[in-house]
Amino acid sequence: MTPLQLHTYQTPNGHKAAIMLEETGLPYRVHVVDIEAGAQHHPEFLALNPNNKIPVIVDPDRGRVVVESGAILFYLAERAGVLVPASEDERLATLQWTLFQAAHVGPSLGQLWNFKIFATDKIPTVIERFERESRRVLGVLNGALAARSHLAGSYGIADVMTWPWIHAAVTRIGLTLDAVPHLARWHAEVAARPAVQRGIAVPSLQHEQAA
Amino acid sequence: MTPLQLHTYQTPNGHKAAIMLEETGLPYRVHVVDIEAGAQHHPEFLALNPNNKIPVIVDPDRGRVVVESGAILFYLAERAGVLVPASEDERLATLQWTLFQAAHVGPSLGQLWNFKIFATDKIPTVIERFERESRRVLGVLNGALAARSHLAGSYGIADVMTWPWIHAAVTRIGLTLDAVPHLARWHAEVAARPAVQRGIAVPSLQHEQAA
Repeated sequence: MTPLQLHTYQTPNGHKAAIMLEETGLPYRVHVVDIEAGAQHHPEFLALNPNNKIPVIVDPDRGRVVVESGAILFYLAERAGVLVPASEDERLATLQWTLFQAAHVGPSLGQLWNFKIFATDKIPTVIERFERESRRVLGVLNGALAARSHLAGSYGIADVMTWPWIHAAVTRIGLTLDAVPHLARWHAEVAARPAVQRGIAVPSLQHEQAA
Repeated sequence: MTPLQLHTYQTPNGHKAAIMLEETGLPYRVHVVDIEAGAQHHPEFLALNPNNKIPVIVDPDRGRVVVESGAILFYLAERAGVLVPASEDERLATLQWTLFQAAHVGPSLGQLWNFKIFATDKIPTVIERFERESRRVLGVLNGALAARSHLAGSYGIADVMTWPWIHAAVTRIGLTLDAVPHLARWHAEVAARPAVQRGIAVPSLQHEQAA
């Protein structure tokens, strides 16, 4: 097949797509979208995703452009027949946890990241609001992972969707997993997967130099 | 079939589920979860959804509890065979717009609602951040609806997912659709559907008095 085109950058949402590509073994080429330089606002990129967000997947053989990281994960899993939910229960659980990531994990950690790390004006009440909500969300994940090894049953789309944000929480947003031991166990186990280690290295310095 | 149990309240996310139930014609009973009185934190409710959020659907005949409004909409559409995406393209578009609502429309309008309307301490820079992002998101929807009648092709899950938040933007968050005429046209057309009019009246005063 013609390689898929991955438009991405070094962010948790970008890593979701790269990890899934590595898990599936589908051939792909990387296009660096330097969001720190505003490349997501260029007309060529907006033609791919009017929402100006990476990642974007272009599948030349099927003439498809896929946006929204959760939709990309379902698309790639089904495209390759890898990590597709194995039962109706698992499919429903996968959809629920994928939406939980999109609606709660990403938005709360993303706002915390902004107000705590990036904002020049640090506003304590606002940081506290998003820190409290982020801790609550981590607690929900911890509760789910107390009862089972992975979010939707066996390792799959929901874990790939969620792991990069938990990793960013620890490595870039200054949170710890001390109070959420089941989430910490899952974070370490998923981190050890070779596909995950390759995925979070995308885009590499080499990709960026070629851009 | 045994009626589905809808645990809900008068919010945009609650309205998504009620509108879809009305669209499908599936039998259901309403359970009011008074989130203004903190009922979402009661142990009985947390047993249904540890994320303490409405809506929740319980399907007694299939022994399922479904959370996350986007997953509920897919579940109900498939349960009834109504508003199910008609093609692979439409299914993918539906998933993308459902995730766009969960990740962008709901979070940005929700934070704007909080900081502009509910917060006792009004912080201009924070209100401005979420107002700017909300207007950007409305612009993305407007662009999509310039090209077609509904978000994913024909009327369906993605529209039910998004409409209650656009309606709240206008009726409760103090935004207008003056600058986004295609979105305004869609908002008015969807508002005219009898199922939508019935859905946004759930829960009714009668439900609340019975609770």
